[in-house]
Amino acid sequence: MWFECIVSEGLSQNSYIVGSGEQAAVIDPRRDCNRYLEHADRHDAVITHIFETHRNEDFVSGALELAFPCGAKIYHGSHLDFEYGTVVQEGDHFILGSLVLSIIETPGHTEESITIVLVDTEVSREPYMVFSGDTLFPGDIARTDFFGPERKAEMAGKLYDSITARILPLGDGVIICPAHGKGSLCGSEIADHPFSTIGYEKRTNPVLALGKDAFVSRRRTESPYQPPYFRQMEIVNKKGPALLHSLSRVQALSVDAVTTLVASGCQIVDIRSPTAFAGGHIPGSFSIWRDGITSFAGWVLDFERPIVLVDDFNCNLSPVLRHFERLGYDNARGWLAGGFPAWFRAAQPVGISGVCTVQDLKRRLICEKLFLLDVRDRKNREHSGSIPGSHHVYVGELPKYLNEIPKDRSVVVYCDAGFKGSLAVSVLAQHGFHDLTNVLGGMQAWVRAGYPVER
Amino acid sequence: MWFECIVSEGLSQNSYIVGSGEQAAVIDPRRDCNRYLEHADRHDAVITHIFETHRNEDFVSGALELAFPCGAKIYHGSHLDFEYGTVVQEGDHFILGSLVLSIIETPGHTEESITIVLVDTEVSREPYMVFSGDTLFPGDIARTDFFGPERKAEMAGKLYDSITARILPLGDGVIICPAHGKGSLCGSEIADHPFSTIGYEKRTNPVLALGKDAFVSRRRTESPYQPPYFRQMEIVNKKGPALLHSLSRVQALSVDAVTTLVASGCQIVDIRSPTAFAGGHIPGSFSIWRDGITSFAGWVLDFERPIVLVDDFNCNLSPVLRHFERLGYDNARGWLAGGFPAWFRAAQPVGISGVCTVQDLKRRLICEKLFLLDVRDRKNREHSGSIPGSHHVYVGELPKYLNEIPKDRSVVVYCDAGFKGSLAVSVLAQHGFHDLTNVLGGMQAWVRAGYPVER
Amino acid sequence: MWFECIVSEGLSQNSYIVGSGEQAAVIDPRRDCNRYLEHADRHDAVITHIFETHRNEDFVSGALELAFPCGAKIYHGSHLDFEYGTVVQEGDHFILGSLVLSIIETPGHTEESITIVLVDTEVSREPYMVFSGDTLFPGDIARTDFFGPERKAEMAGKLYDSITARILPLGDGVIICPAHGKGSLCGSEIADHPFSTIGYEKRTNPVLALGKDAFVSRRRTESPYQPPYFRQMEIVNKKGPALLHSLSRVQALSVDAVTTLVASGCQIVDIRSPTAFAGGHIPGSFSIWRDGITSFAGWVLDFERPIVLVDDFNCNLSPVLRHFERLGYDNARGWLAGGFPAWFRAAQPVGISGVCTVQDLKRRLICEKLFLLDVRDRKNREHSGSIPGSHHVYVGELPKYLNEIPKDRSVVVYCDAGFKGSLAVSVLAQHGFHDLTNVLGGMQAWVRAGYPVER
Amino acid sequence: MWFECIVSEGLSQNSYIVGSGEQAAVIDPRRDCNRYLEHADRHDAVITHIFETHRNEDFVSGALELAFPCGAKIYHGSHLDFEYGTVVQEGDHFILGSLVLSIIETPGHTEESITIVLVDTEVSREPYMVFSGDTLFPGDIARTDFFGPERKAEMAGKLYDSITARILPLGDGVIICPAHGKGSLCGSEIADHPFSTIGYEKRTNPVLALGKDAFVSRRRTESPYQPPYFRQMEIVNKKGPALLHSLSRVQALSVDAVTTLVASGCQIVDIRSPTAFAGGHIPGSFSIWRDGITSFAGWVLDFERPIVLVDDFNCNLSPVLRHFERLGYDNARGWLAGGFPAWFRAAQPVGISGVCTVQDLKRRLICEKLFLLDVRDRKNREHSGSIPGSHHVYVGELPKYLNEIPKDRSVVVYCDAGFKGSLAVSVLAQHGFHDLTNVLGGMQAWVRAGYPVER
Repeated sequence: MWFECIVSEGLSQNSYIVGSGEQAAVIDPRRDCNRYLEHADRHDAVITHIFETHRNEDFVSGALELAFPCGAKIYHGSHLDFEYGTVVQEGDHFILGSLVLSIIETPGHTEESITIVLVDTEVSREPYMVFSGDTLFPGDIARTDFFGPERKAEMAGKLYDSITARILPLGDGVIICPAHGKGSLCGSEIADHPFSTIGYEKRTNPVLALGKDAFVSRRRTESPYQPPYFRQMEIVNKKGPALLHSLSRVQALSVDAVTTLVASGCQIVDIRSPTAFAGGHIPGSFSIWRDGITSFAGWVLDFERPIVLVDDFNCNLSPVLRHFERLGYDNARGWLAGGFPAWFRAAQPVGISGVCTVQDLKRRLICEKLFLLDVRDRKNREHSGSIPGSHHVYVGELPKYLNEIPKDRSVVVYCDAGFKGSLAVSVLAQHGFHDLTNVLGGMQAWVRAGYPVER
Repeated sequence: MWFECIVSEGLSQNSYIVGSGEQAAVIDPRRDCNRYLEHADRHDAVITHIFETHRNEDFVSGALELAFPCGAKIYHGSHLDFEYGTVVQEGDHFILGSLVLSIIETPGHTEESITIVLVDTEVSREPYMVFSGDTLFPGDIARTDFFGPERKAEMAGKLYDSITARILPLGDGVIICPAHGKGSLCGSEIADHPFSTIGYEKRTNPVLALGKDAFVSRRRTESPYQPPYFRQMEIVNKKGPALLHSLSRVQALSVDAVTTLVASGCQIVDIRSPTAFAGGHIPGSFSIWRDGITSFAGWVLDFERPIVLVDDFNCNLSPVLRHFERLGYDNARGWLAGGFPAWFRAAQPVGISGVCTVQDLKRRLICEKLFLLDVRDRKNREHSGSIPGSHHVYVGELPKYLNEIPKDRSVVVYCDAGFKGSLAVSVLAQHGFHDLTNVLGGMQAWVRAGYPVER
Repeated sequence: MWFECIVSEGLSQNSYIVGSGEQAAVIDPRRDCNRYLEHADRHDAVITHIFETHRNEDFVSGALELAFPCGAKIYHGSHLDFEYGTVVQEGDHFILGSLVLSIIETPGHTEESITIVLVDTEVSREPYMVFSGDTLFPGDIARTDFFGPERKAEMAGKLYDSITARILPLGDGVIICPAHGKGSLCGSEIADHPFSTIGYEKRTNPVLALGKDAFVSRRRTESPYQPPYFRQMEIVNKKGPALLHSLSRVQALSVDAVTTLVASGCQIVDIRSPTAFAGGHIPGSFSIWRDGITSFAGWVLDFERPIVLVDDFNCNLSPVLRHFERLGYDNARGWLAGGFPAWFRAAQPVGISGVCTVQDLKRRLICEKLFLLDVRDRKNREHSGSIPGSHHVYVGELPKYLNEIPKDRSVVVYCDAGFKGSLAVSVLAQHGFHDLTNVLGGMQAWVRAGYPVER
Repeated sequence: MWFECIVSEGLSQNSYIVGSGEQAAVIDPRRDCNRYLEHADRHDAVITHIFETHRNEDFVSGALELAFPCGAKIYHGSHLDFEYGTVVQEGDHFILGSLVLSIIETPGHTEESITIVLVDTEVSREPYMVFSGDTLFPGDIARTDFFGPERKAEMAGKLYDSITARILPLGDGVIICPAHGKGSLCGSEIADHPFSTIGYEKRTNPVLALGKDAFVSRRRTESPYQPPYFRQMEIVNKKGPALLHSLSRVQALSVDAVTTLVASGCQIVDIRSPTAFAGGHIPGSFSIWRDGITSFAGWVLDFERPIVLVDDFNCNLSPVLRHFERLGYDNARGWLAGGFPAWFRAAQPVGISGVCTVQDLKRRLICEKLFLLDVRDRKNREHSGSIPGSHHVYVGELPKYLNEIPKDRSVVVYCDAGFKGSLAVSVLAQHGFHDLTNVLGGMQAWVRAGYPVER
């Protein structure tokens, strides 16, 4: 057999291609699907099966995109009314060369979630791998909060049962191929391991160690953040997204073109670092650094108004555009030709915002009446403590809580490191806040400097 | 942590790079080591540790080559007098960021063989992976025949104990990262799996299922083939190979340059297919198809006389030259510019040899007094049966058994598929045999055609 | 300004992209147009203009394919009823940043041929480059035989006037960017120069040296070969070809799939070397070596029946598939998975054909009554002489002259080097000829061996 | 023949490879020479000749680096005591396949400058191309200021004669392949054309239009800037530079490693944009944006103290490291792992400097007593005018004129666009200036905003 894990960095989304003989199957393909086709070609195989472990809510499915050129059949679980593909059920199995892929239904994260068990009959009848989708991750277990507070306990219980009754008994030596890795929005505690095994998880996964009751009761009280774009993904992935060749191409945009777009209400995304943003930016833009797109675009960008990217040397555009493709931001229109320097060369208005070090902050806290705002997520604030006297609003939820922030005081924002702080500053600036400072290094630097932490 | 398995195709040799924080370690590096350095750079890490699980006998170690640019320290087991590197012993451990790499001594394949256990303390104190070198493979166990017939049983026993007493107890969920995959000369039954787990091997590995006594007694009687180049690798890897930048560059060679080299006794390697070789070749060349280099070059090529490659469109040169680099054939001199067509355009002498289908063979066997020669390996002949009336000499051992083959009869050679048969024909032609035919499709086609098989 | 010549190897077709400021223009794009888009992106420019110097007859225009993603406007000459694009006329000019592109009408090769003169106003008002399409080539002048014998003289005269009255007066220092280079079917004497200048051509172009009358009268008598696919290109390029994403994907095909296709009348194209073909091939296949596709596919392949490729190690597929794309062979279906060895492993029928060296031929000519067939083109036969006693039929026209070749005699085929000979053998084999031999090295080897040449 | 121009972007240095048959020649190779070797390999040719048109002063010659693997012979002019290579003289010629490369001596830029005339005998005996080195450029003529003020007129006269008496008479249609393009330090007025012709230059080159006397007298008074690293290049290229494999590898450096290097006096080069630098940087670093390295590193960096790079996402490192290699900065030690964010996360001291728009500047000029400093080069200041009231010191010469800048006033720096201004700010900050502001957009924005310009 041949096997490849194809990771969408940033999203931390894992897709898989497995092949045997002249056939291959892809599990949870992303939208930019050339790599699957190239792998199949290289092995002189044809992709005949596409499996979706569940209807994803954090990225756009590539199933239709991949099926279009290669003619593969798409399979998903039976408990959702997908508008494309074929339904599979418990016990269905598919043969590719020496491989047998069997379906087990593992509801909990969603109702239609399935897990695929791979047996390589050339070696044995024993399970060799499981594609566990969003059930069991290295070090964590999937979210169960998508069906409203009233069904939290029910879904958590289903998931726990799916894992303990259906997956764990497959055997300690079975390799787990999950749909996500560390950094995914789908599991905040996923370990930074490329793959895992049932045995290793049984020994080390802290959530598994809880036992069902403790797990369910914990899940009952938890309210993980849900970025608004999840809703869009659910709609798109149920009905099937647009094929990429039908979209208009993202191209370079002159300063004039960008000013026109700005005038008609586009979304400017500044993908540079917090220091670059502070040193100068297009007024009204969002500061979402290159590697923060996958986690934060979905909180602040809509799917309607055109999106324009701003970089310095335009060398970070490709990964960001790929992220947009994967997140379904088909309204990405282009990038500022010549980068941000083209903007200031053209004598266009430039926003400049404040930054300070933790040493500066320490000094200012003594002598100024700052409004100190912590924009990290709840968990982070709880685990790592906070700077004494700081208020808390999660960066993703800022627009909802603007009235809690005073417009007549210096607002100093901090997060872990300074990136989310820059996004928060950019959001506040859009809402008429003026005296804004982002703390470079955030909590990490504060702790490193040995300053007092409030818990 | 980050982790990458880097496979040398053909050799089926697996090397690994793992990193955490600002450091990385490489296990069993090959000689063309840019990929390790690039991985480290991409992760903003520096390779600080190089481990060799044992002195390899099937390829040239890249440890010195890699240590040269990055300054990493090289570690190997203590029971061999390496002329470079540092010795490690049972219980030694090395810390890289959150990772702990611990040494366990696992003699058997060689005396100094070590296995490296990886723990990721960020997750747990439990072992996560083992780099098992040449001890335990998916579906097989390492060779134990390198110390002469008198020590076969001893080494087999040691290996069995190393595996069962030291590796298997680490836990069923531990991932096994072996030094070789399917196709390696170091294990004829290795399964075609990218990696395995202790649990899966315990359930499915047929050699493990034997029990120690049966295993040792089987090993006592077995005599796996040892290609002569193994001896060279042992010497080179003990003392440390030449650095690649010190070698002269392999370049294009004109027809004139090649005829000069031929006159002074070079080795011509024709890397084309059996049909291309049959249709015309430089007289005196070896027919070793592109993907057969790693398995068969070491049987027939020496390390002294210059090597010249012949292809058709010169698009297969890169992989072959890389194989030569890995096998230590630093005497590779160049390739025929313009490919084989340049040769016949220049009106140079062309050798043409016979091919036939199994249907042809069937007919000829009835009416001719052929000498039918099976050049497959012993195991293959035993397992799959043979064509009735065929004689057997393994292709690698042909030069030793030339006197068993008649010069005055039509010699028809077959193997599995037709590739090794072409090599055999080329070797025989070099020794004055004239009436030579290679069976296209070999035993596979014979069986497929439904013809009688002798067992 | 920035400038790039993008060459389609094999076709020897030159396309160009030039840009200034935020705009770029492409001249004579091919169908696989990503490189133009990437160039534009890299320069933060958008392709706004696509020029076609004329309706091409040797490859499929990429104008629509390129306009689709980037929205550029397509321009061509006015004397043909294109079903897409916009018509330009003498004196039209287009401004891109500092560049001015002016149209001059230069009929002769076709009626609607245009030449584009580039001035870079940042430097001067003098012409800097001309995109001469199919008018003036380095060392040659375009074909003028596409309008039937009755218009040969007329078109030749027009072309001569276009060149001498419109292009040459632009100035000796002007750089010529022609639509074709050496090896193109559109000019048999094109020099092997990447570009040229008006001054250099005036001094060295042998056709220009003729003077108009001599040129026209020479053209009147010449009948260059026209591969049948030219007609298809003319139709396709007038109406606009299919977009690539609408085509079905070319994929690997199992032996079974290929046998099924063979049974229903597909076209097998064996892209290996003449020796590989001789040593074994699928009966009924065409032998068109990798680099001969652009010149010879259009003689023998139709645009209806599925095309299947056969290689040895499947490493030459990409360039060949790209050639098919450019030639409009949208009926390419796939390639034999596993290469030709998969075929003989499956005990399928194998064709084997004869090859010999010129030395062999010399001997056979003395003692056998061969039918010796020269399949080179007319010009080549005239220029280089031939082997005494040989008959002549151009390989492309073989199917028309089959009755001139005896079925009851040994037919020995030769060409320049052995490649076209192999194609000829494959075509003859399809028509029931059995005793076929291809001379390796052909005329080149014959001359090299010092054998007598007939002129 | 085959031909390729290989441009070192940034340096705007052109090198060339030409080949015919089995040989190739390289003209003015750079140090990273794999592309030449790959081209040669692709054409089945061997590089046998390396020509240096003169001892370069703006980059490190790659002649030895290239000759090492391929064994080519190195040729240069006779009027300098090179410590490697072979001397050529007027009239020497070299044959490669159908090509003849002839040497003409063309002193002026340097004494030993040569021009190489290429004839392709397959086409004609007429010159086809000239490799004009640093004599004639598109739109400009080489510098003649390297031998001190007393020899300015002499060298200018020699150069003029070399061009008019030796190169121009070769014919208007000859293609000029110069050693530099637009942006090079070796010619400030070079046109942005990929290549040129003698005819085009005769018609359009403004320097050629001057006539000898006017040219010489102009040259007598001109004093173009000479970055100090030119002297190092002259020494290195005379004696032959170190081979790259002998250098230590540039690798990632932890924050701790960087602080240690800082403490012992390393050179920090911040390759980010002016806004990123303003928003935060390592105190004491040089602000040289990615694309300014080739023009400005040589003004401020020495060849002794270790160099450390700072980027944001570490995606601009490769081009910058390549620039360093080409400029001979073999003291480049590494880059800050994790980019600048790693620095502020570690609570290290951060420098923050001022930026303003031209609108801000306009306002401040009215109400503040600023010291307004123009750091553009002399020519630029003269040609484009300046902001009224500004003082002038060229950025490269700032260290020499520090005492002309007041420490007790706000210093506002501007250049064309804001990049050189950032470098100037960084240099001033190293010398104890505190109140520093860089004008984003510089003169370009000032003009664009319609503000008054002083001439």
